[in-house]
Amino acid sequence: MLSTTKSRQMSGQTQVQALPEAKKTQPKADPLRAEKMKKREKLRIIPLGGLGEIGKNMTALEYGDHILVIDCGLMFPKEEMLGVDLVIPQTKYLEDNRDKICGIFITHGHLDHSGALPYILPRLRCPVYAAKLTTEMIKEKFKEFSIENAQIKQIDPGQKFQLGVFKIETLALSHTIPDEMGLIIDTPVGRFVYIVDFKFDFQNIEERKIFRNLADIGKSGVRCLFLDSTGAEVEGQSVSEIKVKESIDSLVRGTRGRVIVTSFSSNISRIQSVLDAAKSNGRKVAISGRSMEQMVEIATKIGYLKIPQGLLIDVRQINSLPDSSVVILCTGSQGEEYAALIRMAAGDHKQIKIKPGDTIILSSSVVPGNERSVADTINNLFREGAEVIYGGEAAEIHASGHAKADELKIMISLIKPECFIPIHGEYRHLFRHAQIARSLGIDSEKIFVINNGEIVEFDKEKARLSKERIPAGYVLVDGLGVGDVGNIVLRDRQAMGKDGVLVAIMTID
Amino acid sequence: MLSTTKSRQMSGQTQVQALPEAKKTQPKADPLRAEKMKKREKLRIIPLGGLGEIGKNMTALEYGDHILVIDCGLMFPKEEMLGVDLVIPQTKYLEDNRDKICGIFITHGHLDHSGALPYILPRLRCPVYAAKLTTEMIKEKFKEFSIENAQIKQIDPGQKFQLGVFKIETLALSHTIPDEMGLIIDTPVGRFVYIVDFKFDFQNIEERKIFRNLADIGKSGVRCLFLDSTGAEVEGQSVSEIKVKESIDSLVRGTRGRVIVTSFSSNISRIQSVLDAAKSNGRKVAISGRSMEQMVEIATKIGYLKIPQGLLIDVRQINSLPDSSVVILCTGSQGEEYAALIRMAAGDHKQIKIKPGDTIILSSSVVPGNERSVADTINNLFREGAEVIYGGEAAEIHASGHAKADELKIMISLIKPECFIPIHGEYRHLFRHAQIARSLGIDSEKIFVINNGEIVEFDKEKARLSKERIPAGYVLVDGLGVGDVGNIVLRDRQAMGKDGVLVAIMTID
Repeated sequence: MLSTTKSRQMSGQTQVQALPEAKKTQPKADPLRAEKMKKREKLRIIPLGGLGEIGKNMTALEYGDHILVIDCGLMFPKEEMLGVDLVIPQTKYLEDNRDKICGIFITHGHLDHSGALPYILPRLRCPVYAAKLTTEMIKEKFKEFSIENAQIKQIDPGQKFQLGVFKIETLALSHTIPDEMGLIIDTPVGRFVYIVDFKFDFQNIEERKIFRNLADIGKSGVRCLFLDSTGAEVEGQSVSEIKVKESIDSLVRGTRGRVIVTSFSSNISRIQSVLDAAKSNGRKVAISGRSMEQMVEIATKIGYLKIPQGLLIDVRQINSLPDSSVVILCTGSQGEEYAALIRMAAGDHKQIKIKPGDTIILSSSVVPGNERSVADTINNLFREGAEVIYGGEAAEIHASGHAKADELKIMISLIKPECFIPIHGEYRHLFRHAQIARSLGIDSEKIFVINNGEIVEFDKEKARLSKERIPAGYVLVDGLGVGDVGNIVLRDRQAMGKDGVLVAIMTID
Repeated sequence: MLSTTKSRQMSGQTQVQALPEAKKTQPKADPLRAEKMKKREKLRIIPLGGLGEIGKNMTALEYGDHILVIDCGLMFPKEEMLGVDLVIPQTKYLEDNRDKICGIFITHGHLDHSGALPYILPRLRCPVYAAKLTTEMIKEKFKEFSIENAQIKQIDPGQKFQLGVFKIETLALSHTIPDEMGLIIDTPVGRFVYIVDFKFDFQNIEERKIFRNLADIGKSGVRCLFLDSTGAEVEGQSVSEIKVKESIDSLVRGTRGRVIVTSFSSNISRIQSVLDAAKSNGRKVAISGRSMEQMVEIATKIGYLKIPQGLLIDVRQINSLPDSSVVILCTGSQGEEYAALIRMAAGDHKQIKIKPGDTIILSSSVVPGNERSVADTINNLFREGAEVIYGGEAAEIHASGHAKADELKIMISLIKPECFIPIHGEYRHLFRHAQIARSLGIDSEKIFVINNGEIVEFDKEKARLSKERIPAGYVLVDGLGVGDVGNIVLRDRQAMGKDGVLVAIMTID
């Protein structure tokens, strides 16, 4: 447990603004040592997750005795991983080099960036750095896991701080959750910019400040840009959150019956849009679903969500109001088995029965793999006589948080990096993203399309792919067991599920 | 086996143009008999598959002693149906009323309309009616299943014939396989039009004839229209096959290396487009993959595919030609485990190794459920250094065969039916389709959104939903067993796959 550990990282070295420089050592005429020294003068980029896959994002930057870890995400299991609850990165390399780790920086609160922390942090025992909402979400998660005394340090957008040899400045960016931050990392071999999930919200006037910031960074000379590839295949640009707010308001205004809205519970600005639409159309809002209730509570506590007095009502009160005065905000946008909307659709929700006249808005996209369960939910809602509004971004009732091709082009053009490493995506996303970077004039030899576990080394002059590979496969979490289930267990489970079991019993007298 | 059976259906009654009228019976003063007679004067619509689901399409029309069956399709198993190979309709009602069946009409050769025949026909022992290509495909399938002496009768588009009390005229329609036919069915209670998978190909000059035909039918007075709902959710209209042909030609023209095209093997006009593009750009074509080879052979034999002399080469010859002279047409558009393209992507194909310079065109859409395997194939092809062109209809390298909302509106407006029954689709598709019909002025009470096993009865004046329900669930095919695997077996398989097996052995002395 973290609570019983007092490692170097926990006690002082990684305190904000109070870190020693990389240790100075006396050179000796030992060739092995010289080789080692040479290695120490390189920045090593070590991706542990998120390359060649969607999810479990994690990257380490190593220089000399210092390792900076960025993100610690989980991935939901693939179809063939029977009985597996979730998948986390393989962190053997970090465990073996635990003493070097200055900290883990979490870019934002989504689970594919933060969800593996409860499993991995107890092994690494280092401080965690994140923005306000992100730290609140992590603390909440740690409570569930009874992880105590973890050092979680709040960093604000635009703040400068130092972790070991790394001089860091954070960068505010737009995404589908507040407090998304990019990193500008100054190292002995130059400036690196690390940008994960982001979008440009061109309709939002606040976005101008971000553009100015990015242009300034570009002028400062950037050695390498790491950039989210999720949307690289998709032409054009993402829908504005402001457009979605307008759609929701107009749908609520045009409806006489109850309006039931589901979305991702971490999408605080979407929740605000629903609250605002209810308020301006004279309706009250009831919230149903644990994660939605929890996020509304957190976001209200830290002032990220503004709820007018008297707007919220208890879900048990809805039947005492006319239908035209009710908005229900609920979980279930992904057709999750026990979520509020799914229980409503199946007629299993205690307080809310779907009826003709109800309008359900799915203000969300379908996460790949959930197509069937979402479609079933829609079918069931229609069967109960409701009208269902779905169709995601195309219907302008959802805005993706991932920059599409045009936005990626703008980002690369603003940052103007010498080298480029596409991150976060299956191989085809990384490949397309590399094509985009090439089309903007970045030298092919300075673009690295790499896999988890492959290392890119930067010295003062050059960048090259190292021959070294470190273990970076899947670690499967099954109930309480982390890493107990491997390929052989999975193969057996698949065989049993498909063909059954034959038990042979032999009694020897 | 069919070969040993000489039932009424097999021996004569259902021969084309040589069928007796519905039997005339002497009325008696028996109230039970009067009730029975009343029932006999109704046309009963009995959907056995395809409603509330995508696949296993099958509908029966019953009047007195005569049953006409339309289509006999299969469905691929859902994710949770572990170890199940395919799903076919429950046909107990038809088996119990076998003597009444005049024949099964197959609208086209796709498996969701014809694929259950090898399992169901031996139980029903009636003749099968279908167009030229469809009969050839069925015969091929029956060979595999060693089904002999089945009566398969060829019907051409536009042909008139009679089955029992049903006077039928077939109607040529556009789809992604040749010989798609709709049915105009004259019954004692009026004219019914049954249209499954179709699209309007507005760019195709031949389509004008179809429009004229449909307008004439509309003028003749239609009691009820049955119409494919698959595309009802999607606004707009489908891409023209002519546009796709142009895209393929332009891609082949712009490529220096080898071009590898995959598509659905039954899409004969797509195959023709690939052959034409190769020819006009001075390339040879090699075919890889069993179902593609088989379909090219069948379609060439019946004159549906025109292959210029010397265009085809054996796949073993491709390495003796310059890359700029090669097109490979192959299976694998759905990421199927052993299909040609998947073996190429994995480096397992004997003759064809993917290399930089290759361009692969996925001239297909992704069938729901195959998203993961198709994405993996694309990733693997990129890893081998190839360029991959995908994106389906949006990229204009594929055209869907299912009419979208605008086309459905045109069809309903042309046919102008009194009643409307949306078929082929999950509940949300049927529901949206019903909304479309209402928006075009069809009375809500005359639109029937029904489930498999629910019966709509038409007498001379009225149409109403019967209280009778007939069994119309899933029959699961697992290897050689048809219907052996039920819900309990599946539940056990799921439990074993997820949680494993605990075997308790107790020895009693």
